[in-house]
Amino acid sequence: MLGEFEGRDFSSVCEDLHSFAAELYPICRSITGTGIRETLELINTRIPLEITEVPSGTEVFDWTVPKEWNIRDAYIKDASGNRVVDFQRSNLHVVNYSIPVHAAMSLTELEPHLYTLPKQPDLIPYRTSYYKEDWGFCLSHNQKLALTEGRYEVCIDSTLAAGHLSYGECYIAGRSTDEVLISSHCCHPSLANDNLSGLTIAAALARFLSGRDLRYSYRFLFAPGTIGAIAWLARNRDHVACIRHGLVLTGIGDAGGFHYKKSRQGDAEIDLAMAHVLQHSGEFSVTLDFSPYGYDERQYCSPGFNLPVGCLMRSIWGTYPQYHTSADNLEFIRPAQLGASLRVCVAVVDVLEGNRCYQNLSPFCEPQLGKRGLYLSSGGDAGEMAINARLWVLNYSDGKHSLLDIAKRSGLKFQVIRDAADLLFENELLAQFPDDGPSPG
Amino acid sequence: MLGEFEGRDFSSVCEDLHSFAAELYPICRSITGTGIRETLELINTRIPLEITEVPSGTEVFDWTVPKEWNIRDAYIKDASGNRVVDFQRSNLHVVNYSIPVHAAMSLTELEPHLYTLPKQPDLIPYRTSYYKEDWGFCLSHNQKLALTEGRYEVCIDSTLAAGHLSYGECYIAGRSTDEVLISSHCCHPSLANDNLSGLTIAAALARFLSGRDLRYSYRFLFAPGTIGAIAWLARNRDHVACIRHGLVLTGIGDAGGFHYKKSRQGDAEIDLAMAHVLQHSGEFSVTLDFSPYGYDERQYCSPGFNLPVGCLMRSIWGTYPQYHTSADNLEFIRPAQLGASLRVCVAVVDVLEGNRCYQNLSPFCEPQLGKRGLYLSSGGDAGEMAINARLWVLNYSDGKHSLLDIAKRSGLKFQVIRDAADLLFENELLAQFPDDGPSPG
Amino acid sequence: MLGEFEGRDFSSVCEDLHSFAAELYPICRSITGTGIRETLELINTRIPLEITEVPSGTEVFDWTVPKEWNIRDAYIKDASGNRVVDFQRSNLHVVNYSIPVHAAMSLTELEPHLYTLPKQPDLIPYRTSYYKEDWGFCLSHNQKLALTEGRYEVCIDSTLAAGHLSYGECYIAGRSTDEVLISSHCCHPSLANDNLSGLTIAAALARFLSGRDLRYSYRFLFAPGTIGAIAWLARNRDHVACIRHGLVLTGIGDAGGFHYKKSRQGDAEIDLAMAHVLQHSGEFSVTLDFSPYGYDERQYCSPGFNLPVGCLMRSIWGTYPQYHTSADNLEFIRPAQLGASLRVCVAVVDVLEGNRCYQNLSPFCEPQLGKRGLYLSSGGDAGEMAINARLWVLNYSDGKHSLLDIAKRSGLKFQVIRDAADLLFENELLAQFPDDGPSPG
Repeated sequence: MLGEFEGRDFSSVCEDLHSFAAELYPICRSITGTGIRETLELINTRIPLEITEVPSGTEVFDWTVPKEWNIRDAYIKDASGNRVVDFQRSNLHVVNYSIPVHAAMSLTELEPHLYTLPKQPDLIPYRTSYYKEDWGFCLSHNQKLALTEGRYEVCIDSTLAAGHLSYGECYIAGRSTDEVLISSHCCHPSLANDNLSGLTIAAALARFLSGRDLRYSYRFLFAPGTIGAIAWLARNRDHVACIRHGLVLTGIGDAGGFHYKKSRQGDAEIDLAMAHVLQHSGEFSVTLDFSPYGYDERQYCSPGFNLPVGCLMRSIWGTYPQYHTSADNLEFIRPAQLGASLRVCVAVVDVLEGNRCYQNLSPFCEPQLGKRGLYLSSGGDAGEMAINARLWVLNYSDGKHSLLDIAKRSGLKFQVIRDAADLLFENELLAQFPDDGPSPG
Repeated sequence: MLGEFEGRDFSSVCEDLHSFAAELYPICRSITGTGIRETLELINTRIPLEITEVPSGTEVFDWTVPKEWNIRDAYIKDASGNRVVDFQRSNLHVVNYSIPVHAAMSLTELEPHLYTLPKQPDLIPYRTSYYKEDWGFCLSHNQKLALTEGRYEVCIDSTLAAGHLSYGECYIAGRSTDEVLISSHCCHPSLANDNLSGLTIAAALARFLSGRDLRYSYRFLFAPGTIGAIAWLARNRDHVACIRHGLVLTGIGDAGGFHYKKSRQGDAEIDLAMAHVLQHSGEFSVTLDFSPYGYDERQYCSPGFNLPVGCLMRSIWGTYPQYHTSADNLEFIRPAQLGASLRVCVAVVDVLEGNRCYQNLSPFCEPQLGKRGLYLSSGGDAGEMAINARLWVLNYSDGKHSLLDIAKRSGLKFQVIRDAADLLFENELLAQFPDDGPSPG
Repeated sequence: MLGEFEGRDFSSVCEDLHSFAAELYPICRSITGTGIRETLELINTRIPLEITEVPSGTEVFDWTVPKEWNIRDAYIKDASGNRVVDFQRSNLHVVNYSIPVHAAMSLTELEPHLYTLPKQPDLIPYRTSYYKEDWGFCLSHNQKLALTEGRYEVCIDSTLAAGHLSYGECYIAGRSTDEVLISSHCCHPSLANDNLSGLTIAAALARFLSGRDLRYSYRFLFAPGTIGAIAWLARNRDHVACIRHGLVLTGIGDAGGFHYKKSRQGDAEIDLAMAHVLQHSGEFSVTLDFSPYGYDERQYCSPGFNLPVGCLMRSIWGTYPQYHTSADNLEFIRPAQLGASLRVCVAVVDVLEGNRCYQNLSPFCEPQLGKRGLYLSSGGDAGEMAINARLWVLNYSDGKHSLLDIAKRSGLKFQVIRDAADLLFENELLAQFPDDGPSPG
């Protein structure tokens, strides 16, 4: 599929990814509330989304779905009535999940509720207080330094009340009910790389796969981080047995090299596929062992589930200075970077869709490729590589090695190996193993 | 045996290898025909060879034995009657397996039948057309540039007709019917490294092993590449179960370091033995994983057979500029290089012959070597190494580790470990495991 | 326990180790006799020792307990009656186990009985002749060069007669009869690193562990090298099934980096524990594969026993110039070096005592640490590391990974992982697996 994808006007694909991120950027998202609902509605304009609302108070494993949080406005006004900190200018200014407050107070009283980044004095930090009822404002350190003594009017016009937690799913049915899960969180407010990059690429991938003849079914989950994934897992505890491969997409719009964190299994097919794709991508990439902190792979890879779900990032969360600050904005994620990340995702889908085992039907000595016109090089290195690929596929198609195994062993790209397998299959030199119906086109 | 081998006048061994190659060099070999028969006859003057003739048209697995090709003469004459290209000067001048032709034609008509190496303008390339009926001439690029416009008489006095494919086998019976297969191809015309080096060393090794008390039986196969090995395998399909170890010898006369390509199994005893021998040989060497292109290990290691057969080379085919050109001549293979390759082969035979498992009969604590006179160092590093070797053999002779395993683990040479085992066996501190009769001498 | 150990005045611990070595240093030890008995008596003043006397002539596996050797005096007197070589000045002057001799002889007759180190002309070598009845003197090469022609009176006032071989054991009972064996040899005369370092540290470790509530029982064995370990194994052939972990301590007082030689098993828990401790010790260290020469691990790891016993050294025996010479004296082992070695031993005991498997009781998704107050960082890197450690323990506590496995995988120190496990266990998020009673304090 990647080939076809390349045939399209790729720069318009890149621009579209970024413009969708730009559309989503201003919304004040949280783990519950209208912000996440608006986000899911906007995704729904692009791909069909089934939305689930889980009531506050619902127990999901060791957790409880929290009250729903909504916010209309927030500010700090000085004695002259000027909004010196204004939620309308940036939704990062309010500590996410702040309870309502409306009071007058001195700067001294206000100060314990103010959060800044002294080492990055121009940036507004991103802060949350989901599970402890509290309120606060985030502002740049320079902004704070400019505050003078005096009385301030402090207002957070929010509500925290029984409601729902929302998540959306886009299900694309394939020939098999075996599923590939693509998960991205959608609970961060105006932060671009840390969550918009993941969800715009997930949405674009879903749109790209829609209407195709696919081997696997694909489930795209857009849910608030941690509690959303936990709620989904709680409601789909038995269903997860269908998940054959999975990927958490997050932080993949910045300019950093790719970092793929392997599933807890460590040698799942998704791990091998992603390592292969990144190695042949021409991009700088690093493969990391699983660790139990990060994004929602924490939940998918908890020992009770241990699903084959890895996490694709560019720069690693927490290691870049823009992380969880107002500098994680639309300038930080560039169209070409989003596009290259989407290509990696499509390439991995290509591998998952095309990977299978074959049985060489002529396993004693090499079959005579020449008499079938399969030993004639079309010339040049590519031609020789194609012949070598045929020999690799024939030699290792013993029912024990998948095409991906053969690609890895030979050092050749999966697509070259798969093309060879397709040609040998057409020439009746290979059988599918185990015989699982017609080969995908 | 290597020790004994070293006792002989080694330089005369080296010279003999080269002079046999020189004797074989002028013959115009192909995959069938009188050239290969003459070659087998010359080998037969040195070691007893059983020759098999397989009729053209015989089906061997997916292949069919081709018609037999023979050639008497070939030339291109200019208008003055001068042979401007002359088979009598080099048999490389004719595309191997060229069908007969006798015609007059213009240079323009002739040109599609001329093959040169523009980047190596002084060398004649080596070309074949076994399975597509065609004809052609190979010449140096400079020769071709010197051809002027005009009429040429073109003659290839060859025949392509029903006949036979020939191969030869030298079988040296050992105490067991378990076999070591040594295979080299003998189908290339005047090329020295690419096939004469392998077959002269195989013949010398066979002669060296003849008449000895051997643990294994040894089968030396001299056959045309690909179709010869396939024909042999087809006629010996059940017999191959006897093959315990195998080696393809090819391209081992040049000055390059050793390259050993492991069998498809990857950890067969021959793979471990060759890695050990090369590591201790004092020569530069590289061990390569199996790949499904190269020489006849392609057939022996096809997935239906998957025999423990590796391939010993010096420089890797296709990577040196002399490969498949007139520069692969008798100057390119030197006596000392051939000799060093033969020594590696003998050393590997030594390991295969001597490798076995023992059981320590005194496994609780160390046996007291001192009271048996086995703890007295003869002095110096060699003496201390001999004692260490005894301790290694005693400690790891638990029925799970072969002497080769112990050699690898200890970092000591196989021969040192084997000497220690022989001494401990004499002193009744070891039993053979499993008990398989008297220890070899 | 290491923490508590650090709380004490560590330099006094170091000094005490050295002063005990100094107390033991002058004694003329051998594999039997009063020297070893005095040594065991001195150890017995510090820790309770059960002493076993094995009669000469007792068969122990392939060996026989030798006659007992004792010595009162020895000298070489020149014609003027001066003691030119005097046992009273250094017990190294006599070849250990020399039979008695009293004779007058010329220098020429004496010379075959004199041992020197020509390359280290100021040092007295250490020599033994346990199993061959002989006599001799060791002296510095310079001393020997100073000997003039003439008659010498040679006297070795020793006895070699039926007696006993002595060894001592200190047993510290823990909650389980599963044992940790700590073994050090005590048969060398005035050599400091080669045996006093090991036995003083073993004695200090035994004293440190006495009276504690321990998971394992600990057996400290002080025995002559080789024959002592063999005699002990012969008398405890069935008992060794209790040994879960073991360590030979030797040559750990010098200034070299640590060398840990793994048990023959290679992946025993003691091997993983020691590798972990050394890696996090801040000291230079190297882990070596097992080899069948060295100290008494040779016997414990003979194939019939194959016990999980490794060997902790600083510099490797035979590789430092002081080895087996009079330069292996009290200056060569320093208090701080002995102390650091003891700390490594205590740290390993800490790991062995604390290592176990747990089962995460909330394995589906992460448990909500926040509501238990376990997600609040105490701030700084240590606080974040503590939270990460909790996540590592929860994720990998699946009954298949021990705390040590988790420490290795996470890169965190065992103690950090164990603290996390203790906290999670208190919070009822973990169960012991298998359930083996109350967790150690």
